Amino acid sequence: MSGIFYGVGVGPGDPELLTVKAVNVIKEADIIIAPRTEKIEKSTALKIASPYLKDSVEVVHLVFPMVFHEDVLTDAWEENKRIILDFLTQGKKVVFLTLGDPMLFSTYIYVFKLLKDSGYPIKTIPGIPAFCAIASHVGMPLAEGNQVLSIVPTTKDEKALEDVINKSDNLVLMKVYKNYVQVVEKLKESGHIANSVMVSRCGLDNEEIFTNLENVKKQQVNYLSTVLAKRSGEK
Amino acid sequence: MSGIFYGVGVGPGDPELLTVKAVNVIKEADIIIAPRTEKIEKSTALKIASPYLKDSVEVVHLVFPMVFHEDVLTDAWEENKRIILDFLTQGKKVVFLTLGDPMLFSTYIYVFKLLKDSGYPIKTIPGIPAFCAIASHVGMPLAEGNQVLSIVPTTKDEKALEDVINKSDNLVLMKVYKNYVQVVEKLKESGHIANSVMVSRCGLDNEEIFTNLENVKKQQVNYLSTVLAKRSGEK
Repeated sequence: MSGIFYGVGVGPGDPELLTVKAVNVIKEADIIIAPRTEKIEKSTALKIASPYLKDSVEVVHLVFPMVFHEDVLTDAWEENKRIILDFLTQGKKVVFLTLGDPMLFSTYIYVFKLLKDSGYPIKTIPGIPAFCAIASHVGMPLAEGNQVLSIVPTTKDEKALEDVINKSDNLVLMKVYKNYVQVVEKLKESGHIANSVMVSRCGLDNEEIFTNLENVKKQQVNYLSTVLAKRSGEK
Repeated sequence: MSGIFYGVGVGPGDPELLTVKAVNVIKEADIIIAPRTEKIEKSTALKIASPYLKDSVEVVHLVFPMVFHEDVLTDAWEENKRIILDFLTQGKKVVFLTLGDPMLFSTYIYVFKLLKDSGYPIKTIPGIPAFCAIASHVGMPLAEGNQVLSIVPTTKDEKALEDVINKSDNLVLMKVYKNYVQVVEKLKESGHIANSVMVSRCGLDNEEIFTNLENVKKQQVNYLSTVLAKRSGEK
């Protein structure tokens, strides 16, 4: 039996926001890979998926560096690749868990590039992006009619960030914890601040909803925070 | 017992891409509202959700006009509102099905606005957007690192459409069936055409994947078609 590799999106937090397909794949996994970065100790994705793990599953915690160069792999990436290929050679069903959707700003994208030419089948199962869950949760449509929705990591350089915020009627801002004060300043200048909301840890314990972004202190902004914003005048 | 209204995203096509929460809500529904527009006879959302309907559920087919003005409701919208409120007054669990995600370019957004001040509780359950399912299906990441993802209905006016295509490294283009030829022309000019893919009816019967958009005839482009595109040089 040949090994098979699955990248599975577990959504933003609520275990009920996994898809039926994701649950089925997780239930049948031999190996669960719970990724973490150097900075974050625990795997949130593993916690979300935990109601669905079978008793005999082997959970492997791997650190995935946030920097990836396909052509020149670092030792850490080489080692992760070797570990995963070992499991696949043994014919295992290997499931890599990923927060939100696997193909959107995820470490999984690098894992996918790492393995796509390995000869083993790879199946990716989409997940609910945090911004979709937040929009439903707070009752704020993302975009309608002929409007554009821009999904923006606020870690962009300042000029590019300002440009996209100014040009967009509907915004999803990700990674806002890194430069929260500047982001709020730009949303004020662009006319989005009155119609903006930030949700941290949507569907997880300690979820928080902030409707007045100007009153939020930088140190209150969790790593898992997303801002939805519309220019005033939009509904 | 008081009525409750649910807006439920059923994802793009595969019934296994509903969330666990969506399935649970659909299974307990008294009334399923299967929306359709004037032009489309059958409800695709109903077909996707059909494996989960309980035998005794009442399915109500309603036509929702694609134009909505919150302040001056047309007769059709008034009538739909009256029908839904009647069910809620009877204490029913009413589930409105919607393709993809309910808060993203959906008729549900109008239904939500129609009912949000009615006094009945409204719960919205997110769904997998078609573009997420397509990205996983064809193995094409949507955006990574500091990149912006622009989600664009190609029904925008021509200048605005050209502008957003030219400025965006990563694109999701929706409603492309309306002006497919112009869209392909703009993707050629902007340098996206070499890294573009169109998927029609993702996860449904007659799904089609087109990797060479220039070879596609306008009449081959289904209503449920989405284009993913990256500017050449992006990975």
